[in-house]
Amino acid sequence: MSEDHHHRRRGRPGGGAAAGPGRAAQTRLRNPFAPQAVLSEDRIAAIHDTALRVLEELGLRVLLPEAVALFRAAGARVEADGRTVRIGREIVAAALATAPGAVRIAARDPGLAVDLAPGAMVFHSGAGCPHVSDRLRGRRPGTLDDFREAMRLIAGFDAIHLMGAAVEPQDVAPNLRHYATTLVQLETSAKVPFVYARGRAQVQDCFEMIALSAGETGLDGPRTFTVINTNSPRVLDAPMAEGIIDFARAGQPAFVTPFCLMGAMAPVTVAGALVLQHAEALAGITLSQLARAGAPVLYGAFASNVAMKSGAPAFGTPEHMRAMLVSGQLARHIGLPWRGSSGAAANMADAQGATETTLATMAAVMAGATVTVHAAGWLEGGLTFGFEKFVTDMEVLETLAALAEPLGAGPEELAFDALAEVAPGGHFFGAAHTMARYRTAFREPLVADWSNFGQWTEKGALRADERATEVWRARIAAFAPDPALEENLDAVRAFAARRTAQGGAAPPG
Amino acid sequence: MSEDHHHRRRGRPGGGAAAGPGRAAQTRLRNPFAPQAVLSEDRIAAIHDTALRVLEELGLRVLLPEAVALFRAAGARVEADGRTVRIGREIVAAALATAPGAVRIAARDPGLAVDLAPGAMVFHSGAGCPHVSDRLRGRRPGTLDDFREAMRLIAGFDAIHLMGAAVEPQDVAPNLRHYATTLVQLETSAKVPFVYARGRAQVQDCFEMIALSAGETGLDGPRTFTVINTNSPRVLDAPMAEGIIDFARAGQPAFVTPFCLMGAMAPVTVAGALVLQHAEALAGITLSQLARAGAPVLYGAFASNVAMKSGAPAFGTPEHMRAMLVSGQLARHIGLPWRGSSGAAANMADAQGATETTLATMAAVMAGATVTVHAAGWLEGGLTFGFEKFVTDMEVLETLAALAEPLGAGPEELAFDALAEVAPGGHFFGAAHTMARYRTAFREPLVADWSNFGQWTEKGALRADERATEVWRARIAAFAPDPALEENLDAVRAFAARRTAQGGAAPPG
Repeated sequence: MSEDHHHRRRGRPGGGAAAGPGRAAQTRLRNPFAPQAVLSEDRIAAIHDTALRVLEELGLRVLLPEAVALFRAAGARVEADGRTVRIGREIVAAALATAPGAVRIAARDPGLAVDLAPGAMVFHSGAGCPHVSDRLRGRRPGTLDDFREAMRLIAGFDAIHLMGAAVEPQDVAPNLRHYATTLVQLETSAKVPFVYARGRAQVQDCFEMIALSAGETGLDGPRTFTVINTNSPRVLDAPMAEGIIDFARAGQPAFVTPFCLMGAMAPVTVAGALVLQHAEALAGITLSQLARAGAPVLYGAFASNVAMKSGAPAFGTPEHMRAMLVSGQLARHIGLPWRGSSGAAANMADAQGATETTLATMAAVMAGATVTVHAAGWLEGGLTFGFEKFVTDMEVLETLAALAEPLGAGPEELAFDALAEVAPGGHFFGAAHTMARYRTAFREPLVADWSNFGQWTEKGALRADERATEVWRARIAAFAPDPALEENLDAVRAFAARRTAQGGAAPPG
Repeated sequence: MSEDHHHRRRGRPGGGAAAGPGRAAQTRLRNPFAPQAVLSEDRIAAIHDTALRVLEELGLRVLLPEAVALFRAAGARVEADGRTVRIGREIVAAALATAPGAVRIAARDPGLAVDLAPGAMVFHSGAGCPHVSDRLRGRRPGTLDDFREAMRLIAGFDAIHLMGAAVEPQDVAPNLRHYATTLVQLETSAKVPFVYARGRAQVQDCFEMIALSAGETGLDGPRTFTVINTNSPRVLDAPMAEGIIDFARAGQPAFVTPFCLMGAMAPVTVAGALVLQHAEALAGITLSQLARAGAPVLYGAFASNVAMKSGAPAFGTPEHMRAMLVSGQLARHIGLPWRGSSGAAANMADAQGATETTLATMAAVMAGATVTVHAAGWLEGGLTFGFEKFVTDMEVLETLAALAEPLGAGPEELAFDALAEVAPGGHFFGAAHTMARYRTAFREPLVADWSNFGQWTEKGALRADERATEVWRARIAAFAPDPALEENLDAVRAFAARRTAQGGAAPPG
């Protein structure tokens, strides 16, 4: 075997429009597994029904008068406090009847459009981290440079299908931050960009920038997405409610995702936490449909447990996995695409971090999650985006992407002739069947080292997280944005400059 | 929250007969997932049919005259060389008709009996490693002391259901080694012991020791098991053939497991490697039934790929996972319980090792493997048993054991009253529903550290593999064998002493 037997089936680091090796295989993934059912249909119906009771009998505290008015107009009962809203099940049912069962988000490169539809397997990196860490520079508050590097990493991996808010750029003023993060996403990749719901003014700014990047003056269909976290238990705050309304009216999908930590902000039982998750998600989904019937919206699932002593959240636990598996059943029960959640509590990319994220991602995939968020790079329960962790997690996502490819089992793959060619006790290294296929037969690892102990020791006995440093460094160093990405960006930059001169848009509160 | 909120749901380190916390939940596991199908039924039938063609048209080289005679007597065609055996499909079909679809292996503690039956989820540690490693003593050739420590570790984890040959005790002479390993297993745990098929004399010695340990003079039913590896491609050597015959005649289950490395000793395609695996496994299963119709026997699956440049085997890859998933379909096609295989190529318990083993174990579980071998502690593709790796892998197996427990979703777990008790924006820490359940609501981690970054740093910023050292040390230090295990061991020791005085039993060739 010679060196050229190594063939890397990775995408190009540039992340532009052209296809690279493996590109077609990783951009549109179908989940290779049948979704699992861990509860019987009557128990799923019972969770759904109990969630409806929560909305009807206990209600939700809604902190945006405009949202309260929408609920009231639909027939919900509003308490004298003007914010406790009790939502009848017929209102929810009407909303579920208009919410679409599938959403396509267009990208500037048509090949990078994302279908949020049953059977799809979409991956999203770790997101929302105030800190960033890597072995060279340590753990630190995120900056725009870190955000840019994270976007370049994400752009270069075809098995990550959406851009995202990996790292919070804390060195950019809050009233201008959204211009910077949106522009960097648009400069870096043609993948679908992410927008935070941080107040109407910021959201409208971002919509305008994304429309301009597509050569349009307004959004003519889904081109971005956001994540809406309710404030469990049973609070929908003003920015989140406004985000749901604004995204719905603009026809952009929101992932309505209660973050239900069992024993803390949610009941201590998996089923109880899911009742709360389901109630809050249904309330948000209902609000989206009241803002605009037929608006794209995703069911969001993120329930896990906490350490009862410290209250620290945990991920990849049996409780997290079970909650995800049942969430898939609940999402199918209401007929919506849905977002599952991976993640890790680990503080570094060690065996704990790998175990937690691998188990959580596998649970999301087995649950049939349409999109799995926090699937790469999420450390410390989301407080830190780890560059090495991103790389070690990508090994899992690329493995799943390879599993999603069709498995050939026709006469050629069954290899009877090759079996006849090799004598008992022989080997297949030089068989014609092998020679014709060895270059592409197997996925090459990203960071795994298959050397034997002696070779590995000679090379310095490096751990996977140590080797991962070189992987992300090389990826970022080799990054070259596709020139085609620049096509409409002058208009985007001009818009951002004008709005900056006007003072930007401060986030609420 | 006070310290006593921490409740460890682990089994006792002693591993004796009495139940400990979590014991009942982890000893008899049902697979919580529906087995996955990655190929259509007609493609499974095509693999089965092509394997039959391999046996009929190409044949197998069988290096034990006694086995050749059994095949010949059943109607197989034997070449003039006296060892190339072509096995007609009717001979295979007759064998599959008599091989039992479920096997119960009795243990000295009835609660530790193992059911190898559809839907069971049995875990087995890493096995067959010539070397052993840990962070305190480094990597070294295995000794009997290492073997004893590995058995004490295995004994103490209820989610490992079978004893095994974790480490090869190279300091014991080969003609006496089986006395030592069998005795240590019997002294350490009431779990089902493992026996190597290393020649008739050794096997009969081990059977006798196990019978004596149960207070019997002969084996009255399954009480042990072995693993039979064919020599791919298409060779069944003398000790393995003899092992199949001897285990079948004694009514003890053999796991007939070809080790098919795609591109090396097997075709480069997943489907081709599975044709070879299936042909060789069917040959071994057929031999078992020719030796004794109705003998317990398991289908064994262990196909993975190699690095094409170096020939090094890889684990937890897409090819390994796919081969396992299809193997489950093949085992169900022939109606036998089956052995799947986890493992890792990693050289230490880092993120690579955790990713490889977690993915491989998940594939085995999703494939519906009756027993998953090499599920904890296997490093370097089986060259080394790692104590830290064993601990980090046990986090996965204990998580899966927790997933196998029933998930409550009745009115109490749905927690409507708790949801009514906690106001919007409140928390559930002090809720009555939480207080009644917090001690046992969540699985406690084994080696994962959920501390925040500051606390973790103050404690020394230890990686999971570093923390794992303390876990295995504490387990082994706390080990106290159940006095009940000694009941019949004087007779066992007397037998071994007598056989030792007679010169022991050398393994073949």
